Amino acid sequence: MIRRIERIQTELPPPSDPDPAGAAAVQELLGGKFGEMSTFLNYTFQSFNFRNKQGARPFYDLVANIAAEEFGHVELVAKTINTMLTGASSTRNGKAPSAALRDLKGVGNPHHFLAGGQGALPQNSQGRPWNGDYVFSSGDLVEDLTHNFFLETGARNGKLKVYEMVEHPAARALTGYLLVRGGVHQLAYARALELLTGADLMKLFPSPRIPTEKIPECRPHLERREHLRLYRFSQEDFQEVTAVFRGPHPETGEELEVADVPHPVGAPAHDLPPQPAVFAPDYAPEEIAEIAQKLRKQAGLPKEPTGQVSEESADLVETLVGNARS
Amino acid sequence: MIRRIERIQTELPPPSDPDPAGAAAVQELLGGKFGEMSTFLNYTFQSFNFRNKQGARPFYDLVANIAAEEFGHVELVAKTINTMLTGASSTRNGKAPSAALRDLKGVGNPHHFLAGGQGALPQNSQGRPWNGDYVFSSGDLVEDLTHNFFLETGARNGKLKVYEMVEHPAARALTGYLLVRGGVHQLAYARALELLTGADLMKLFPSPRIPTEKIPECRPHLERREHLRLYRFSQEDFQEVTAVFRGPHPETGEELEVADVPHPVGAPAHDLPPQPAVFAPDYAPEEIAEIAQKLRKQAGLPKEPTGQVSEESADLVETLVGNARS
Amino acid sequence: MIRRIERIQTELPPPSDPDPAGAAAVQELLGGKFGEMSTFLNYTFQSFNFRNKQGARPFYDLVANIAAEEFGHVELVAKTINTMLTGASSTRNGKAPSAALRDLKGVGNPHHFLAGGQGALPQNSQGRPWNGDYVFSSGDLVEDLTHNFFLETGARNGKLKVYEMVEHPAARALTGYLLVRGGVHQLAYARALELLTGADLMKLFPSPRIPTEKIPECRPHLERREHLRLYRFSQEDFQEVTAVFRGPHPETGEELEVADVPHPVGAPAHDLPPQPAVFAPDYAPEEIAEIAQKLRKQAGLPKEPTGQVSEESADLVETLVGNARS
Amino acid sequence: MIRRIERIQTELPPPSDPDPAGAAAVQELLGGKFGEMSTFLNYTFQSFNFRNKQGARPFYDLVANIAAEEFGHVELVAKTINTMLTGASSTRNGKAPSAALRDLKGVGNPHHFLAGGQGALPQNSQGRPWNGDYVFSSGDLVEDLTHNFFLETGARNGKLKVYEMVEHPAARALTGYLLVRGGVHQLAYARALELLTGADLMKLFPSPRIPTEKIPECRPHLERREHLRLYRFSQEDFQEVTAVFRGPHPETGEELEVADVPHPVGAPAHDLPPQPAVFAPDYAPEEIAEIAQKLRKQAGLPKEPTGQVSEESADLVETLVGNARS
Amino acid sequence: MIRRIERIQTELPPPSDPDPAGAAAVQELLGGKFGEMSTFLNYTFQSFNFRNKQGARPFYDLVANIAAEEFGHVELVAKTINTMLTGASSTRNGKAPSAALRDLKGVGNPHHFLAGGQGALPQNSQGRPWNGDYVFSSGDLVEDLTHNFFLETGARNGKLKVYEMVEHPAARALTGYLLVRGGVHQLAYARALELLTGADLMKLFPSPRIPTEKIPECRPHLERREHLRLYRFSQEDFQEVTAVFRGPHPETGEELEVADVPHPVGAPAHDLPPQPAVFAPDYAPEEIAEIAQKLRKQAGLPKEPTGQVSEESADLVETLVGNARS
Amino acid sequence: MIRRIERIQTELPPPSDPDPAGAAAVQELLGGKFGEMSTFLNYTFQSFNFRNKQGARPFYDLVANIAAEEFGHVELVAKTINTMLTGASSTRNGKAPSAALRDLKGVGNPHHFLAGGQGALPQNSQGRPWNGDYVFSSGDLVEDLTHNFFLETGARNGKLKVYEMVEHPAARALTGYLLVRGGVHQLAYARALELLTGADLMKLFPSPRIPTEKIPECRPHLERREHLRLYRFSQEDFQEVTAVFRGPHPETGEELEVADVPHPVGAPAHDLPPQPAVFAPDYAPEEIAEIAQKLRKQAGLPKEPTGQVSEESADLVETLVGNARS
Repeated sequence: MIRRIERIQTELPPPSDPDPAGAAAVQELLGGKFGEMSTFLNYTFQSFNFRNKQGARPFYDLVANIAAEEFGHVELVAKTINTMLTGASSTRNGKAPSAALRDLKGVGNPHHFLAGGQGALPQNSQGRPWNGDYVFSSGDLVEDLTHNFFLETGARNGKLKVYEMVEHPAARALTGYLLVRGGVHQLAYARALELLTGADLMKLFPSPRIPTEKIPECRPHLERREHLRLYRFSQEDFQEVTAVFRGPHPETGEELEVADVPHPVGAPAHDLPPQPAVFAPDYAPEEIAEIAQKLRKQAGLPKEPTGQVSEESADLVETLVGNARS
Repeated sequence: MIRRIERIQTELPPPSDPDPAGAAAVQELLGGKFGEMSTFLNYTFQSFNFRNKQGARPFYDLVANIAAEEFGHVELVAKTINTMLTGASSTRNGKAPSAALRDLKGVGNPHHFLAGGQGALPQNSQGRPWNGDYVFSSGDLVEDLTHNFFLETGARNGKLKVYEMVEHPAARALTGYLLVRGGVHQLAYARALELLTGADLMKLFPSPRIPTEKIPECRPHLERREHLRLYRFSQEDFQEVTAVFRGPHPETGEELEVADVPHPVGAPAHDLPPQPAVFAPDYAPEEIAEIAQKLRKQAGLPKEPTGQVSEESADLVETLVGNARS
Repeated sequence: MIRRIERIQTELPPPSDPDPAGAAAVQELLGGKFGEMSTFLNYTFQSFNFRNKQGARPFYDLVANIAAEEFGHVELVAKTINTMLTGASSTRNGKAPSAALRDLKGVGNPHHFLAGGQGALPQNSQGRPWNGDYVFSSGDLVEDLTHNFFLETGARNGKLKVYEMVEHPAARALTGYLLVRGGVHQLAYARALELLTGADLMKLFPSPRIPTEKIPECRPHLERREHLRLYRFSQEDFQEVTAVFRGPHPETGEELEVADVPHPVGAPAHDLPPQPAVFAPDYAPEEIAEIAQKLRKQAGLPKEPTGQVSEESADLVETLVGNARS
Repeated sequence: MIRRIERIQTELPPPSDPDPAGAAAVQELLGGKFGEMSTFLNYTFQSFNFRNKQGARPFYDLVANIAAEEFGHVELVAKTINTMLTGASSTRNGKAPSAALRDLKGVGNPHHFLAGGQGALPQNSQGRPWNGDYVFSSGDLVEDLTHNFFLETGARNGKLKVYEMVEHPAARALTGYLLVRGGVHQLAYARALELLTGADLMKLFPSPRIPTEKIPECRPHLERREHLRLYRFSQEDFQEVTAVFRGPHPETGEELEVADVPHPVGAPAHDLPPQPAVFAPDYAPEEIAEIAQKLRKQAGLPKEPTGQVSEESADLVETLVGNARS
Repeated sequence: MIRRIERIQTELPPPSDPDPAGAAAVQELLGGKFGEMSTFLNYTFQSFNFRNKQGARPFYDLVANIAAEEFGHVELVAKTINTMLTGASSTRNGKAPSAALRDLKGVGNPHHFLAGGQGALPQNSQGRPWNGDYVFSSGDLVEDLTHNFFLETGARNGKLKVYEMVEHPAARALTGYLLVRGGVHQLAYARALELLTGADLMKLFPSPRIPTEKIPECRPHLERREHLRLYRFSQEDFQEVTAVFRGPHPETGEELEVADVPHPVGAPAHDLPPQPAVFAPDYAPEEIAEIAQKLRKQAGLPKEPTGQVSEESADLVETLVGNARS
Repeated sequence: MIRRIERIQTELPPPSDPDPAGAAAVQELLGGKFGEMSTFLNYTFQSFNFRNKQGARPFYDLVANIAAEEFGHVELVAKTINTMLTGASSTRNGKAPSAALRDLKGVGNPHHFLAGGQGALPQNSQGRPWNGDYVFSSGDLVEDLTHNFFLETGARNGKLKVYEMVEHPAARALTGYLLVRGGVHQLAYARALELLTGADLMKLFPSPRIPTEKIPECRPHLERREHLRLYRFSQEDFQEVTAVFRGPHPETGEELEVADVPHPVGAPAHDLPPQPAVFAPDYAPEEIAEIAQKLRKQAGLPKEPTGQVSEESADLVETLVGNARS
């Protein structure tokens, strides 16, 4: 089972100019064959299905642990899409249904507006839903690791291309981070295969062949050595990843390491403002807020919400909701 | 992001007689429209996409927190299927490819044997993959909660029917637990809607109308008051669920409660033995074990694997692998 | 728009021995590529999309009118499946969840039991859902008619094969009727093409080449001249089908005719009894009946239900529900 | 079975400026998960599969009867799309294939032009086909009604958003009407659940929370009391809906009523003109018209087509076909 | 089995202005229900599954042989799409990841850029993958031929519409050729049905009703009599097509003929230049070229590549790669 | 383009006892994610989309050439399935529709009987259609080769498991051959990657780890050195495969070689007899044979069919058709 932590793995910028067409493209990293739902659910199913895990514990610990990180990647992509969609509907006259979505006709993924509340969907860049055929879990350890190495390769390809297509600051912050972390996973699987078979897949690295240090948005993460470090995403479990994830980084020669904290510090997410035109969280969000406030009081909770959000958010919501309501 | 814990939410029995046809049926609870992947990913996406969460924190905390529990449900169903498939392939002559899957021709889900390693798949009872169209995330809080109430209703229906179809002890242990916990989620969403709108959905409870106390496998969990309790699946977050999840249980009048521990104690899972006929984890699993042992030593890890598994498992693996290799 | 009539187009036998594997096969005639949902929705969409219909009225009237008949075919197939599934679950101990579906594990379409209430589904014989890709509506009249002729050919093929595979009396009554009526539609489209282009598609008839008079279950319908007659499924509209549907039957030379009543007399359907093991219509159907009775009284309705059902049904329900409850 | 009537349930405006991008969006209301094919086929399958209907007649009559109305909604959405697509292809030089679709490259749903004849498709706003997984028919009456209430909620959401996105007069006429009628169905299912269980789902109404009286295109229908009235869509059947559909409207307090005519008077549809660039009904539609005229004569039909179309249409066709041919 | 020949069936122009939106439309002819993958795989499966072929050899030879031609059609459509996509990504600054795909956001099929390397995909114009449900192989010869006639009709419709929508020279060269060759296949299946049953399907020809001689891009092929000629695509086999493919062409009266060479002379394809922004064949294609050159030398191959490409290509690659690298 | 040759790549046994459940399992090797349609179409699309092929000719030649072999593998799997299905329907009373498919109710893939003519389908072992999402064609040479290596690994896994599940002689002959040839392709892609990057993927070989020499049905092919040899499938093209496919075999040390004939000699296929119960090729196959004979005569063809079939087949057809008709 899991515990859930109200922080995201890296900071994302607050909403700025909306980019609905860009958000549609970023969906490839969420619900595409090589998106984060795929990495998350592939490794998760492989870990659930692992047989004789005590006999192969270092490899089990590796797969299960990377799976846990991928949950956070799904979350990051979703938050990025939500950020990019914020402000896309018009809020000029919020008191009656109007043509608030007029400018979005023919732009981006129509389900972002017609089915969802300007929010992320388990779909790819074509609007096709993620499906279970994207999961490979043969149970054969060498095969599953070969698959995972290939999956990370395809995922890296997708991230680079989304980087090239979408310049929105949230998309760039996302892909910069994911490219570095995806590289760590690619290495981890190559290393595991090498230790099992002797095959030197490190030499395929990086694939596609663009070193992350050439990418400005990767650099802060490289400087924090995020390209060398595996987190365990557990206080107590997955101790044996150290038996696999070590040795030199194939590009830089630096030593790989298992972090001595369970997961990245990360940051609280922004509290994205309502989008009343799509009824998220309601056509009259202030009514919900009043009810919630009353319930919090009845339950003896402090006057301010207990959950942390990104510092910038208070102002943000005020401004944007103010606009929406006026 | 999440932390991952190497325990499952409730104990499952060790492998006994294999039941491949039953395992195919249990897949409905994993990859079906109303299976646990659906509950997990519906609530997860709704929580990722929640707008103005500070304004509606109790409701956000509720959805995000139940999402975390559902990850553990997916895990439980997967473990159940794996348990039921253990021993289904013949291990009589393990040294060369043979007709080890002959008796499984035309039985159950062929992908359990031809594609996977006698392991769980993100598919339903018909072998169709789970897909993202099963996720509803409109952003409108009242609608999303209405959906979730309905989803839990459909999920309860599926669990009851799998209970009636499959008598394997693992399947019964699973459905007994899930029916109780699913009931809690059904209540939670009904309660949230009541607080938001006044509509008394509690009166629809239970639906389908079989009280859990009539089901023997539910009783131990009822006795432990698992039908009254919401876990927070977080040490620090989701504090405001208390503003929603309280009041009397609609069937028994007992008071609902938020647990003062983050999650159920649960139990370590069994370490399911290799199934060499399907190459899981390998056609010669002992070779992988040797490599792993060597790597553990090189990494300075203790001689015994550090990860905990169910106590019965050591003997289990010894016996079953012994059979497989002889 | 439509009016709906509480009669089915031909009599079906009451439930007898259940045949869940047969019911799974009959689904091909419902949700298969060449099933009745396909004929119904192909012609319906073509009729909705017909352009310049005043200029081509006889052809429009033909397509729209056959579409109306196909709704009744979908209904017939559904009723047949429901009949074949009645009694498939055990009713021995109806007061608590039990193993009432045990004997159905691995038999037929698992969704008949795990998702539905022993009822028909919009799926084919493999359990795959019908989908909109099965609809062809090019707008080009000659092409659409060519498609329809081919669709009826494939439909006839499917009906003959289901006839050969499933001997259950309901399935045989169904296929006997549908083969005769499908033949009329095949003729109608061939005739329309002949009148438009001169191409003599009648010579392809029948295809597959088994004359219906060789099939015992077709004979009563042939004797009632159902192979020669087109119904208009409207009191007032579709008058111009007479401009297309006339001339000799290609096998027998008899004259084709447009019926002078809007639709077949048909018969009321059986009122199929509850199946409490799958909660249809409830785990305790008598409670629903009581509520309904009370509501009817409050509304000033007569004591007996106003809707007609097949005469045999009263006894049938009594017997079967009696069994279910005892 | 059904009878089919050559009228649509409400008037739609004639073609004006084409809006292919808008037509692609409106497809969500046809083939989307919450579109009219879903409401139509969900209730239709539930009615076909209803068990013990004599025991629960008022509820059966309700579901079967609303199903019949939904057929007409599918028809209305299709007609709206066809209207919006009329004129989208160029008709400047109709005598040889040209670049008549050039301006439609990259605009809207490409299947409207490449696969269909500028006509409606069983697809959603992303061009994905409707499929049978969208149908829920559990057989459990309370569950099916809960589903239906939720389905109407999602449908209302979709209609409101299409309203906001698409300003074309046909789309606005459509959504104005459907919002009012969908509200009636939402009420009907809430009422049924209340009578069965006591749960007051009326309090969830409306959801999403935009009262229809704020929507100008709804008002004429409200003035005609269409928000209070259920039609029976049958001369003789479904008498017992009166046992369920009564009591006050939750927003206005006005009394609900069952109409004393079987269905809305409605209006004849427009006869949409040919679109020769996409061969609908032909590349040379006048040839088909000649053949049809000859056949009508041979069949002894009156000189003028017997089928009624909207009065404006004669002129419309003349003008538009004239343009197309010149 | 097959031999593969490094020539395409007709010349295509070299890359010119890229047309990504047009390329997305042309995908309908590749992966659409009526695209070339469908014709290719329908006839291929029918030929694999043909029973009693010695008894029906002329018909077997016809189907198997046309299947072989369709492989070349798939190839032609793919090459066309690749040509149209060449140059669509920016190559201004090729040494680091940049915004090279920025202008393609929201244009055409996003998978052309995010998943593929500006290359063809087995998808239709909506980005939906081709699937096996598009194959009809009933085994009944008359039915299969009826299907094939209809399939060619739908394919012709699609080609005409793509012709009208896309003016790019490669798309026009493609559709001009395919319309002529598709006409031959339509005739061949009509002829086969006529010989088997007497039904004169030739009279449905052409459908849709635009004679190819009205289409400028068809004329060169008509002048080369490509509308009259069937190739055998085999040196030795399929001799018996002559028993079916003969008689007069229904439009012109000219005699049909079986070519005395196995296949069209065709032309070498262009060697399309790298697109480094999408890493095709690499981010630094010159490195691959160096390795290849070294390997060729080691294997004793001549200095110049042995495979033939279109004459214009050498210059083309030089220019375009030069641009890409500078 | 291709030429097609009327021989299959290796001999298959004639029909014997039918095995419909086995045939359903073998479908995984045809339409499964790792089946032969996937290998064929992956390499085919990659070859169509190859950019700068003159610069990387040895790699292009390799991919294009293996693609050609895979067409023959698809053919072999189809022929195997057809062989296994022959005789599955009853032929006792062939003159009228009967219960000839009764024993096949609930057995194997229902589409083999209800949709097809006891013939192969583009579906997997669960009856789900192959789809274009199974094709990976990124354009990045290193990635595409990595994918292909992984794809061959998954394909080998599937073949081994089908071997273990299905003992029918045709299935065993098939898998014995495909395992040897698949090994060659796995090697070829590993070798290509090694030459491009230095990564020694040969060390992953074989994966899954069952050497083919342990499999009796592989041995005859090993003895013929089929595990060492690449065919070019072209008289003139693909000369440069020799630059990649050389060096020692990783298991045996024997030298890899490019064959000096274009393709395996292979064998003519059996002419599988009619199955009149499913109308393949007709309900009265002798009528088709008569027509064909007449047409052959009119065309001046020799009295005996010119196409070669396996020698055993003449007797086979006589016997089986005799049975079918008597």
